[in-house]
Amino acid sequence: MKALVYQGNGEKLWTSVPDPVIEDDRDVVMQVDAVTICGTDLHILSGDVPEVKPGRVLGHEAVGTVVAAGRASGRAEGDRILASCISGCGRCAACRFGRYGQCRNGGGWVLGHLIDGVQAEFARIPFADLSTYVLPDTVSDQTAVLFADIVPTAYEVGVRNGQVEPGSVVAVVGAGPIGWSAMLCAQLYSPAHIVAIDPAPARRQAALRVADTVVDPDHAEATVRRFGDGLGADVVIEAVGRPETFELCTRLVRPGGRVANVGVHGEPASLHLEDLWIRDVTITTGLVDGWSTRKLLDMHAEGLLDPSDLLTHRFTLANMIDAYDVFAAPAGSGAVKVVLGR
Amino acid sequence: MKALVYQGNGEKLWTSVPDPVIEDDRDVVMQVDAVTICGTDLHILSGDVPEVKPGRVLGHEAVGTVVAAGRASGRAEGDRILASCISGCGRCAACRFGRYGQCRNGGGWVLGHLIDGVQAEFARIPFADLSTYVLPDTVSDQTAVLFADIVPTAYEVGVRNGQVEPGSVVAVVGAGPIGWSAMLCAQLYSPAHIVAIDPAPARRQAALRVADTVVDPDHAEATVRRFGDGLGADVVIEAVGRPETFELCTRLVRPGGRVANVGVHGEPASLHLEDLWIRDVTITTGLVDGWSTRKLLDMHAEGLLDPSDLLTHRFTLANMIDAYDVFAAPAGSGAVKVVLGR
Repeated sequence: MKALVYQGNGEKLWTSVPDPVIEDDRDVVMQVDAVTICGTDLHILSGDVPEVKPGRVLGHEAVGTVVAAGRASGRAEGDRILASCISGCGRCAACRFGRYGQCRNGGGWVLGHLIDGVQAEFARIPFADLSTYVLPDTVSDQTAVLFADIVPTAYEVGVRNGQVEPGSVVAVVGAGPIGWSAMLCAQLYSPAHIVAIDPAPARRQAALRVADTVVDPDHAEATVRRFGDGLGADVVIEAVGRPETFELCTRLVRPGGRVANVGVHGEPASLHLEDLWIRDVTITTGLVDGWSTRKLLDMHAEGLLDPSDLLTHRFTLANMIDAYDVFAAPAGSGAVKVVLGR
Repeated sequence: MKALVYQGNGEKLWTSVPDPVIEDDRDVVMQVDAVTICGTDLHILSGDVPEVKPGRVLGHEAVGTVVAAGRASGRAEGDRILASCISGCGRCAACRFGRYGQCRNGGGWVLGHLIDGVQAEFARIPFADLSTYVLPDTVSDQTAVLFADIVPTAYEVGVRNGQVEPGSVVAVVGAGPIGWSAMLCAQLYSPAHIVAIDPAPARRQAALRVADTVVDPDHAEATVRRFGDGLGADVVIEAVGRPETFELCTRLVRPGGRVANVGVHGEPASLHLEDLWIRDVTITTGLVDGWSTRKLLDMHAEGLLDPSDLLTHRFTLANMIDAYDVFAAPAGSGAVKVVLGR
């Protein structure tokens, strides 16, 4: 089959590799029908995730059709499934607390990270009984793929860790796919005001569909302080993964507020404890667990949550490299989220 | 009267100043019967709290006798009171949420910081109706003074923000008065194991009264991983206020765990987001609010909480400078908490 293989040193190649096979009774192998590219893949290519070794098939967000099902997978050939970016054994101490992202038994974020991923014609999905979702006919492949990672990540790690509440002033740093998804999920809680912060004019313009106000980072502090009681945002969501964007979050948050980090980081940030020690601030980090995935899919089916506006560009699998180029240069392309299919 | 006056540049002087007077109906003026020195005072003298200007009377932990009571103070001459380190107006938006430490109406931590403090023969206490506690005869001045700051700070900002639970592995970095108080309060939740971390052998030895294990910082990581499931501490409490002690906390915490910062910081720390982004860590900062003070005093009266072992050295007020010298050099003196009285 063809797959996108990490070559090391920031290089990638769409090339031939052996077909995946069932390795465990809980595995399935699926034909990939829709797959997307994540900001995390760009972090891998820029060296921020050194655990990813050359030879690894990238990608952790896909919808597909089961072509081979392990005996304990709970799935059958022909099932149309969403593969979560997170695999959970369901048995270890972390999984028993619902922390599937921290699974200690071969799960967690493994796809396109520690095992071969889904930017390929076929993919092996471990722990399929817990980590895949049979999809209803009412959701398209292209929309469903957004529930593999970014929607539950934005909900669990951004909005829920950030504890958005009715009336909250919410600032989201980074109006890419994760930031957008976080704003969409934040709206479920009836916030008073959502401010999207991004340096790219095209992304700010697009974010007006989900934000009340958009602003560039240089003017973010003054803008955020126009809302609420002027002391800063109740909740700040970091959706980029750079030291300067994280540090901006800690300046935007009000006393008693929360900073929810969602971004994938490759280097340390400065934590200005000389200002923050006295301000009753809570900072959270997190990897998605996927405990919310089924509920979010149901909410989509019920019309409560529609992330499909995120999809700006479509490609065929064979155009994987072109899709990366478009996704990695949103200032020029206006891309938010790209999807690839057969 | 005599008082300890900050001179700037790390200098202090026990000298004559005008007697305090009632300035607002909610004020009391009290004769100081017992007062102590806080690690925060040492942070002030080392320049970490630049808001404290020369001429300021230091100190924010005292017990006294009311000698003048404002009409709306709710107190009467002769009342024996604990003055909380935190003054709360009770009316602003922060106070209405119980965040008295963030009071926006002249309260918060003001004593010995933004207004004259209690390391003096007499002191004016604002918002006395909310910020002082009439003491029962069963508690001594010397013990009660520990409830002005360190016991509620350790409880609210350390143990409650850290969410210590039954069975928790708790690591406390810094076995000074705040660290000690945090361990004492953590015991209320039946943790599995408390590890105290301090470079000073005398403080480690003393901490054995409240910790299960004591260790120096260089061996802290290996020691903490001996308990629980070996992944780190569920709760880490920072009770020093240095970049290196905060950074140690972020290495000691388990995935899914919490770092509760209590220390007063004067400079930034490095936050190693390249490790932490994926680990589901929560970091809290906070200033005590004092919402727990009455309850903690009641618990002391009921025999549930006795911090009196913290008191290692006693002085008269006139020996204020000697008391600072002893408190600032615990390695030599073995001091944990000093108390000064008449």
